[in-house]
Amino acid sequence: MAKSTRKSVVGQPLAIGIDIGGTGTKFGIVDRDGNVLFSGEMSTKKHAEVNTFIDELYTVLSELIEKAGGIGRMKGIGVGAPNGNFYTGTIEYAPNLPWKGIIPLAKLIENKFNLPVTLTNDANAAAIGEMMYGAAKGMKDFIMITLGTGVGSGIVANGKLIYGHDGFAGELGHTIVIPDGRFHKGTGKKGPLESYASATGVTLTAIEMLENSKEDSLLRKVPKDKLDSKAVYDAAIAGDKLALEIFEFTGKILGLALANAVMFSSPEAIVLFGGLTKAGDLILKPTREHMEANLIQVFQNKVKILISHLRESDAAILGASALVWDMK
Amino acid sequence: MAKSTRKSVVGQPLAIGIDIGGTGTKFGIVDRDGNVLFSGEMSTKKHAEVNTFIDELYTVLSELIEKAGGIGRMKGIGVGAPNGNFYTGTIEYAPNLPWKGIIPLAKLIENKFNLPVTLTNDANAAAIGEMMYGAAKGMKDFIMITLGTGVGSGIVANGKLIYGHDGFAGELGHTIVIPDGRFHKGTGKKGPLESYASATGVTLTAIEMLENSKEDSLLRKVPKDKLDSKAVYDAAIAGDKLALEIFEFTGKILGLALANAVMFSSPEAIVLFGGLTKAGDLILKPTREHMEANLIQVFQNKVKILISHLRESDAAILGASALVWDMK
Repeated sequence: MAKSTRKSVVGQPLAIGIDIGGTGTKFGIVDRDGNVLFSGEMSTKKHAEVNTFIDELYTVLSELIEKAGGIGRMKGIGVGAPNGNFYTGTIEYAPNLPWKGIIPLAKLIENKFNLPVTLTNDANAAAIGEMMYGAAKGMKDFIMITLGTGVGSGIVANGKLIYGHDGFAGELGHTIVIPDGRFHKGTGKKGPLESYASATGVTLTAIEMLENSKEDSLLRKVPKDKLDSKAVYDAAIAGDKLALEIFEFTGKILGLALANAVMFSSPEAIVLFGGLTKAGDLILKPTREHMEANLIQVFQNKVKILISHLRESDAAILGASALVWDMK
Repeated sequence: MAKSTRKSVVGQPLAIGIDIGGTGTKFGIVDRDGNVLFSGEMSTKKHAEVNTFIDELYTVLSELIEKAGGIGRMKGIGVGAPNGNFYTGTIEYAPNLPWKGIIPLAKLIENKFNLPVTLTNDANAAAIGEMMYGAAKGMKDFIMITLGTGVGSGIVANGKLIYGHDGFAGELGHTIVIPDGRFHKGTGKKGPLESYASATGVTLTAIEMLENSKEDSLLRKVPKDKLDSKAVYDAAIAGDKLALEIFEFTGKILGLALANAVMFSSPEAIVLFGGLTKAGDLILKPTREHMEANLIQVFQNKVKILISHLRESDAAILGASALVWDMK
């Protein structure tokens, strides 16, 4: 499905932003001021082959391109994707995508659309979006963390995104916070942040706590296949003690990870984005508390934890499209 | 004590490098090619007051300045110090120094010597030294880690040192690797890298392992006040099983911390420096192994672990002095 949200100024060059997630892909056409003029989404998951994915993307996006004035107005395409590599334009071994190995995604899209394509990690794209249009406007040192199905991050230092020597920097979600901790199915590692501070992680914590405690809880009435971070949120809002403990535990681990990130690159702010942030203070309060508790004195009471105020449906598209304006 | 190592080219401008450590302070006069022309050292620890420290520094360094052609040839002074802040020229709450609170060190030295002073964290200074003269020459993305009495780090990304928004970035030694782990006396935190992967940490591991195991070991014959990382090294070289386990354990924790750092900034190399690196493969082999084991696939078998080849006595001075050439 595709929808039109605003009219564009005739003749102004436009950028296409595509955000590829493990479940769905969002795309849109954006002007230089960050207005998402047209946008749509499609399933990623159902495409076992990247080629059928590209074909469907072409079909749905071509419709929007026509509406926005045709291919001639498009300056280029920016893509945010898990494990996307800015230097090579490839996706490499993305644990949350259906396509395994190394996928030359930028090249595939470029060939199909006949437009220049630039690609990066989805969280890096989000960081660029926040720096250009969002909560990190004007900041030179900040960390963007996306708390969705997984945990992504984009790190900006000295006013520039850190890509690292190979283009893969910023995988905070895979750093080990609990040595020999919870198993991560996608990577086979034990105890990474993503196993705890994601929607998936919250669900796993709920299952564990329900099993290991005898405490009464609203969550015991939720059918197993409906037990997710939303169910935990609803129970917590209703005052359920176990649900509150689940958020407290999640915040404890996220706070520890944030403290470690702060002691690494000393950002002015950490910008949080994604489904889990909807829990508001339920997750933010313990996160902030445990972050401060793990920081050495010199870093205490300095770092802002901000929630992205970009519309969730726009932010990823904005970030990806922002890459286009930097193109040579 | 002060010694002369090389003759300088008459008239060429020179830089003074000062490296302040918890125990001792090293200083030297360096030319643009990185030759340490004159150098010396003094105690830090015995000066409970920073003013008497500055006075002694002035006395011993003035001697060298005279030998090197007088104050007129000195372009400036670069200082590396724990918790040294590049932006403000202050040392703030340095747990390993005798002076507490916020010390305006750059200003104090500037007033005493009447020369421009620039200051940074000791490990940042070492990183700049490695980038200009050492193992990281030509690299744009690397991490420098100093494994001495404590653990320091300097992170370079996009060819620039990461100072963070407040000048305090790069405190990898204080990141928590074992939640609720070993207590750190200086900071009051539990489980930071420095509590394990420093000379102090190795000694603590030795004490713990000797207490918790009944195994025979050469280390049982070492008097308690002589039980240090050097004693563990000597025993390990002699094939002592417990001593080898101490290094294996240290490497396991260091490797985990390196993996987390790699997934953060994806450096081309990690440059290790300091006393612990003298243990060579005893520490490097388990470190490398556990780093790889904790990395997700996209980072595996890519990152070099290098040992600094700068002379230990020179490296810190070189790094601090290198700051001077960047002065405005």
